[in-house]
Amino acid sequence: MFLSYDGTNYDGWQIQTNSGSIQEEVEKVLSTILNSPTKIYASGRTDKGVHAFKQALHFDSKEIIDLSKFIYSVNSLLPNDIHVVKMEKVSDIFQARYDVKSKTYMYLINIGEYDVFKRNYIYQFLRKLDVNKMKECISIFIGEHNFQNFTSKDEDKSNFVRNIYDASIDVDDNIIKISFTGNGFMRYMVRMLVGTLIEVGLSKLDIDEVKEILNQKERKVVSFKAPSNGLYLVDVSY
Amino acid sequence: MFLSYDGTNYDGWQIQTNSGSIQEEVEKVLSTILNSPTKIYASGRTDKGVHAFKQALHFDSKEIIDLSKFIYSVNSLLPNDIHVVKMEKVSDIFQARYDVKSKTYMYLINIGEYDVFKRNYIYQFLRKLDVNKMKECISIFIGEHNFQNFTSKDEDKSNFVRNIYDASIDVDDNIIKISFTGNGFMRYMVRMLVGTLIEVGLSKLDIDEVKEILNQKERKVVSFKAPSNGLYLVDVSY
Repeated sequence: MFLSYDGTNYDGWQIQTNSGSIQEEVEKVLSTILNSPTKIYASGRTDKGVHAFKQALHFDSKEIIDLSKFIYSVNSLLPNDIHVVKMEKVSDIFQARYDVKSKTYMYLINIGEYDVFKRNYIYQFLRKLDVNKMKECISIFIGEHNFQNFTSKDEDKSNFVRNIYDASIDVDDNIIKISFTGNGFMRYMVRMLVGTLIEVGLSKLDIDEVKEILNQKERKVVSFKAPSNGLYLVDVSY
Repeated sequence: MFLSYDGTNYDGWQIQTNSGSIQEEVEKVLSTILNSPTKIYASGRTDKGVHAFKQALHFDSKEIIDLSKFIYSVNSLLPNDIHVVKMEKVSDIFQARYDVKSKTYMYLINIGEYDVFKRNYIYQFLRKLDVNKMKECISIFIGEHNFQNFTSKDEDKSNFVRNIYDASIDVDDNIIKISFTGNGFMRYMVRMLVGTLIEVGLSKLDIDEVKEILNQKERKVVSFKAPSNGLYLVDVSY
């Protein structure tokens, strides 16, 4: 199942105690329609306030499901900020999390005037940024790197190496659009990469310093992570 | 003062008992900054859920105001869904309501796939409409007409005649954009004009029927008003 959601009013993807999660809303609706407690497995979590055009998930059911009717029923019961975009049947061994080939994230920054309508959907930065420097910098993230300094301090992975297949920056009408496609992204990684790009765009960091942060062995996590409201999980490929 | 606001979380422009209004939020902030109870006078009301790119208002103050500092202070105290776009000093006899020369409204309709991010900002119609028929129909609204059948039944005006200077329809990427500029619009008038255009686009009404509704002397208010979430007050001219 591919879902789009507006993350504004949720505490993120994952079920938490005492707060609303997207996972909880979807499981509630699926369990109702399938008349049986149904657990869902996503391609990965998204944090509080982060949006998705196409989050992927799988679930198991013994029912024979008519997909188009099922999508219609699910969408009619889901809150209006979560929406099923597409659904397909998969093999029993398919795993939405472990079978991911690549993920694409997008980050939007407004460098123009404050926009009330986009306050939850585009980071309202409202200052100029040197986009050429940012473009130069983003190219150093492409490829296989140890991104230990671009993830949450609490992240305790055995392997911090990820491969970024593609990364780009475009500007249109004072909106900077930053895209990353890679084999996987750790917690806060995209927001920390974007935060670093913003500091480069402000000339607070130069590209050699970014290279050092990226290549150094000791853990020295970058200080600025861009806020969640500008971040979108755009697509998940299998 | 020109304001933009996202009307989603308000019960409309005007102060009501027991509910949030944009007027109330703005008066609260101005009264705080000017240290004196300050009443504001808008170009007109907007209904619950209706948005504005540029609503105009005036207020009186004996203070000597540094406009750019003042805008900054007001915006820092306003909720993040209301924003001062521009401010200028006007003569003592200026009246934001009575001096209006023209107003422009825009209405947005999504005839493509449901969009979670635009659910509060574009009417999610999600069916095809015959835009050519709608374009033909909108032209009959241009000019001076008695719009008594295109306003709230409760509206008890002595004069239902309004002059629509310009009206147009464009389609881009499954979003229909309908614009009206005129000397004044009564309550629900734009939404009822749009509702009628939608019924024409669905072939539920033909253009001769719309002409009859527009020209008939007896009161027979149109049945469908398009929902508030697609409507924007775009500009007010003086």
